[in-house]
Amino acid sequence: MKRDTVKQLLVETSLSQEESVTLTGKEYHYLCRVRRVKVGEVIELKDSSEKRYNCRILEIKEDSCLIEVGELIQSHIRPYDIHLYLCLCKGKKTDLMIRQATETGVRSITLLDSDFSQVKLKEESREDHKYERWRKIIKEAQQQSGSYINTMLNPLIKFKDLPEIQSDHTIGFFCHQEKLGPSQLADIGKGYNDIHMIIGSEGGLSSGEIEILKKKGYSSLFLGDNVLRAETASLFALAAIMTTMEIT
Amino acid sequence: MKRDTVKQLLVETSLSQEESVTLTGKEYHYLCRVRRVKVGEVIELKDSSEKRYNCRILEIKEDSCLIEVGELIQSHIRPYDIHLYLCLCKGKKTDLMIRQATETGVRSITLLDSDFSQVKLKEESREDHKYERWRKIIKEAQQQSGSYINTMLNPLIKFKDLPEIQSDHTIGFFCHQEKLGPSQLADIGKGYNDIHMIIGSEGGLSSGEIEILKKKGYSSLFLGDNVLRAETASLFALAAIMTTMEIT
Repeated sequence: MKRDTVKQLLVETSLSQEESVTLTGKEYHYLCRVRRVKVGEVIELKDSSEKRYNCRILEIKEDSCLIEVGELIQSHIRPYDIHLYLCLCKGKKTDLMIRQATETGVRSITLLDSDFSQVKLKEESREDHKYERWRKIIKEAQQQSGSYINTMLNPLIKFKDLPEIQSDHTIGFFCHQEKLGPSQLADIGKGYNDIHMIIGSEGGLSSGEIEILKKKGYSSLFLGDNVLRAETASLFALAAIMTTMEIT
Repeated sequence: MKRDTVKQLLVETSLSQEESVTLTGKEYHYLCRVRRVKVGEVIELKDSSEKRYNCRILEIKEDSCLIEVGELIQSHIRPYDIHLYLCLCKGKKTDLMIRQATETGVRSITLLDSDFSQVKLKEESREDHKYERWRKIIKEAQQQSGSYINTMLNPLIKFKDLPEIQSDHTIGFFCHQEKLGPSQLADIGKGYNDIHMIIGSEGGLSSGEIEILKKKGYSSLFLGDNVLRAETASLFALAAIMTTMEIT
């Protein structure tokens, strides 16, 4: 079953070709105990600077393993980054959105406090366990998908703290269930380096929030007549943007 | 909260403008007990022939309600239909794929028995409860999303029973994690009436299955270097196709 193979292991150090590296602790545990790799097997390691190498297991001991770092894997690097902003939804939905966005390779995920959110989040220091779980979901999704991007999770911000869309190389969207203007998808083209995408909570965006977004330079993105749930809209919008960037 | 409003109610009869209709049984229960509509409220009803009307609640009784059928809602009808074939995945994943595909408005969902499926399904008559649950998920997703399409669920088939892609107006894809050829997305264009899309299970497609698909005229659709989970690939592929059909 392909799903049980190790697609990728993230390591927290920097790797170099033709060196060997010893893994201990969590990384050792995941690879040798959970994924049960064998001596001689070739796996992919991604280091802290997002470089990926084909590596061979040389030796497995009681609490460490020795790995030979092989050739650098050339990634098909996207010429743009997507930054996703998720209004807080109920637990499982936020988990799903974070996992799927990571699979598709977004650069960052930022949680947004919104008028219609039915869940509230305290400051990060008081919600350690939640951020810890989300970071674990991200790490697993990266490893399973083999994404070359180390997706970053940013703590909760408010609408007024969203970045302004000012540069010619940046574009910002918010998904909205009503058609506020022509769909901007066809305008995306190749020229953008950074794409910021806002996804509302189950209740959508309030009119005050839409005002703030427009003032900051965001355009509405209409995904069709059907009203999509938040978690469906999130992945649908990411796929729509990535497809547009590919085929235009 | 927008999420609590009735987007649409499916009724099993045929409606006509300026007539009135009495709802009883499940339809009455859902509208008046679950969604708690009030007299005077305007809701959308979709009838058995996929026509949608704005309707007003005239009277609510103990076990029925009277509704006036108002103007016909003009749908933005897609000039093509998507037929989705899902290799069986574990319970919650199949549920999610069915729900999200319905939200986006696919015409039909057919379950596929595949080599790498970890769940097996007996004939429909012996799995009534499962089909019943899936049909309930579809109905809810249609009502919540306001989709104009009555998505149909077809019982399990085998790969050899998949339709052959023969007509000039039909195209078929299977999602595959390895790039078997150039991505066919850019070829979709406007000329197709029917798009058939195969999604593998957690374990992907077997080489035998890929052979059958190629012989039947299906092309591989490569969704990028990242390996997406089955439920992510399903929605991503639907969004990619719909986006391509919109912007090309």
